[in-house]
Amino acid sequence: MALADIGVYGLGVMGASLARNFARNKNHVAVYNYTADLQENFKNLYSTEADFIYAKSAEDFVAKLSRPRCIVIMVTAGDATDAVIAELSPLLEPGDILIDCGNSHPGATARREAALGEKNLFFMGVGVSGGQQGALWGPSIMPGGSDEAYARVGPMLESIAAKAPDGTPCCVHVGPGGAGHLVKTVHNGIEYADMQLITEAYDLLKTGLDADGDQLARIFEEWNRGELESYLIEITATVLAHKDCETGADFVNVIDDAAGQKGTGKWTVQLALDSAAPVSVIGAATFVRGISGEVAQRQAVWEAFDSNQPCLDVDTWNGLTGDEARAAFVSDVRQALYASKIIAYAQGFDQIALSSAENEWSVDLGAVAGLWRAGCIIRARFLDRIMEAYERAPGLALLITDSYFADALRGCEAAWRRVVAAGVVTGIAVPAFSAALSYFDAMRTHRLPTALIQAQRDFFGAHSYRRVDKPGVYHVRWEQQGRPEDRLS
Amino acid sequence: MALADIGVYGLGVMGASLARNFARNKNHVAVYNYTADLQENFKNLYSTEADFIYAKSAEDFVAKLSRPRCIVIMVTAGDATDAVIAELSPLLEPGDILIDCGNSHPGATARREAALGEKNLFFMGVGVSGGQQGALWGPSIMPGGSDEAYARVGPMLESIAAKAPDGTPCCVHVGPGGAGHLVKTVHNGIEYADMQLITEAYDLLKTGLDADGDQLARIFEEWNRGELESYLIEITATVLAHKDCETGADFVNVIDDAAGQKGTGKWTVQLALDSAAPVSVIGAATFVRGISGEVAQRQAVWEAFDSNQPCLDVDTWNGLTGDEARAAFVSDVRQALYASKIIAYAQGFDQIALSSAENEWSVDLGAVAGLWRAGCIIRARFLDRIMEAYERAPGLALLITDSYFADALRGCEAAWRRVVAAGVVTGIAVPAFSAALSYFDAMRTHRLPTALIQAQRDFFGAHSYRRVDKPGVYHVRWEQQGRPEDRLS
Repeated sequence: MALADIGVYGLGVMGASLARNFARNKNHVAVYNYTADLQENFKNLYSTEADFIYAKSAEDFVAKLSRPRCIVIMVTAGDATDAVIAELSPLLEPGDILIDCGNSHPGATARREAALGEKNLFFMGVGVSGGQQGALWGPSIMPGGSDEAYARVGPMLESIAAKAPDGTPCCVHVGPGGAGHLVKTVHNGIEYADMQLITEAYDLLKTGLDADGDQLARIFEEWNRGELESYLIEITATVLAHKDCETGADFVNVIDDAAGQKGTGKWTVQLALDSAAPVSVIGAATFVRGISGEVAQRQAVWEAFDSNQPCLDVDTWNGLTGDEARAAFVSDVRQALYASKIIAYAQGFDQIALSSAENEWSVDLGAVAGLWRAGCIIRARFLDRIMEAYERAPGLALLITDSYFADALRGCEAAWRRVVAAGVVTGIAVPAFSAALSYFDAMRTHRLPTALIQAQRDFFGAHSYRRVDKPGVYHVRWEQQGRPEDRLS
Repeated sequence: MALADIGVYGLGVMGASLARNFARNKNHVAVYNYTADLQENFKNLYSTEADFIYAKSAEDFVAKLSRPRCIVIMVTAGDATDAVIAELSPLLEPGDILIDCGNSHPGATARREAALGEKNLFFMGVGVSGGQQGALWGPSIMPGGSDEAYARVGPMLESIAAKAPDGTPCCVHVGPGGAGHLVKTVHNGIEYADMQLITEAYDLLKTGLDADGDQLARIFEEWNRGELESYLIEITATVLAHKDCETGADFVNVIDDAAGQKGTGKWTVQLALDSAAPVSVIGAATFVRGISGEVAQRQAVWEAFDSNQPCLDVDTWNGLTGDEARAAFVSDVRQALYASKIIAYAQGFDQIALSSAENEWSVDLGAVAGLWRAGCIIRARFLDRIMEAYERAPGLALLITDSYFADALRGCEAAWRRVVAAGVVTGIAVPAFSAALSYFDAMRTHRLPTALIQAQRDFFGAHSYRRVDKPGVYHVRWEQQGRPEDRLS
């Protein structure tokens, strides 16, 4: 039997889907799982789809791969990844390539790449987004690793990737080391932000319009025909229209409100802090998931404040009344959502840029926008505009300084402020909307009040300060009634 | 010559101050520095203050300490700490105690304690706050480590600590392992939040009242006689009244607005995310420091938006006009600041509680509030109230569920909303004020809209959900037109 082009280690839902996708796209695939049950299951379900090679052991699996061997590892990120690497690496030969497609921490990827490099093995950290359906029919793929490894593996990855509307595969070699997993992590952080922003829009609409699921679904369907067009808006409409099969109630109303998380939003914010990237919208989204899960605390606060549900009446809105007011409110919420989304993406791309600069990865931000256009959870029409912005100006200081996005923000600004103010006044929590607006306001302010922070720091910690009118570093001798000042450098 | 009770390794500003403080409080002190210059300097300046013991080498230093030896390490946190430990530990004997008083990461402290434990050496991670003056005249001390080590070192630490208004030393054994440094880290995070909140209040007042430094200083002086009384409000008044000695201008107006940071705010947020503690106000404060330093980006955004400085007119405010309006505005900003500060502290104490539970540290939150009452940067009248709240109910779900703080928030709530809305509408960035308010609104809401997030997650990732009406974990078969549902467990 001919040796396989690629091996897939790990036959859970994601690994099985990737293996089938590789096979459907003319790659000869060997599959293996540490426990026999999943391999048997895979054989029973999919053996007729392609000429898969099955392995009895890790040794057998490795022996059935053509050289240099390419092995996709698709196991739960963390210890399991290290265990598979430890199992496989003694069986491999110089030049072989391990390809971690799990949601690994970029730091772990860098560590693994270095360790395997010492054994002359290649290690690639590859972000894969799109869930089971994406993995099967075309995910967005964010490969990190050396040029040499990508030259061998890239064509196979590109063959299984989603295709953007213009036909390009959503798979671009992002950069060396942890670059692929960093981009995937930020993708997930942006996904957190997107979902939270949609949720705040939903909350405002539901409360303001006193609308049911069908009415809300129609609003999101309409939004999905405009600049907000995206997978997440589309599924929001689907979910809001869905009825619980047991009670017939709006489905979303029977779901417990504690939102789960698997940790990539958290990683995004932690890594952003290390790069001094102010991803405040992703931060707000991540914090809300934490808040939602604090069931006992929330109950105690609810009781302490004997709270009523917030009441927002939009029968008058921005000088209008009745149906006109309600329509204007819906339009305002849409604009607030769009503006906040632009900020969330601007922050995410800023984080990638800072991380890339720090690590000397030379990540092409336009290419990143391009490969998120299909296959992944945050796919959206909007990403074409981001790609274009970075094609126009690869060194763009920040996404919102691009003329297209600056115009969009200017157009939405008044509505955005009205909507956030309505949340603030009526008590509807708008943490992500308001974080986005505060970021915009801080960024566009010519002089921030943070000079006061520098003054305080100089006072209590002699941390020194710079002046607006001349260079140098200074310190006030506060303990001597504040004079004279010292020039420190 | 009698052996010393305690050694201080590292004679920079902080180490020298601690050494002099120990000596002034009847501890016999040996001092040592890796380079001779600082030791010579110390000798020249302070040898008349006390009977200090000087050492020629690390070996000599260790030989001059009574057993079990107690050595304070006061060097720049990080690699230098590890270097000192590596230098000293081979010279020590079982039972000797190393006391790291630097701003070390709680994780590093836990690692060092474990490593030294294997050599039968004690390691204590001790948070020290108060800057140079605090170190010299009485800092707030947050010691972590084993009971056995604290029994030996505690009395010496307590002798040099600040004294609270009721006379108690601001030094309490916080807990084992990294507990002391975790509490110090959160202290610093709260400090970031406090400073940012004050800065937002300053910005609103300055813009709204078009006030100069002296007028603003008088407002903060007045606030310092009420519930906001604190070191940071006091120094804000001093700083705002200060005139630049060169130009005569208000000092704060000549300072560059890029605010520095040494990383403990960042650590607080990163650690909080690991504990799922939603410290959104500290997060906002940390992000703003990052934003303030993005000089090129800010310039580009300023140009793209051709921004004007925000304009807030408070000649009418909340139905009042003229001086009444201006006074009401000042009062509203004070209340917004107070309410936001309560939230920032509630979040910080929540983080300590979560971290303590996770690590089984049994940290006494009331004691933590107590030891911040004097000596440290965030010392404030307010901390007495927090101490009382945790004394009344050690298992308090969240600070704001205590009746004193719930009443305070209720009293401030309307003003708080008016002030945040004014910032939102006029474009004055209020990231920390609005993060605090959003947290309050999310926490007090009976049902959050985050059920939609769970529905989305079930749709795209089969992440499952719980129901409000019965136990169990469920999943909708979305790919089969959403019916029937599966009960997964």
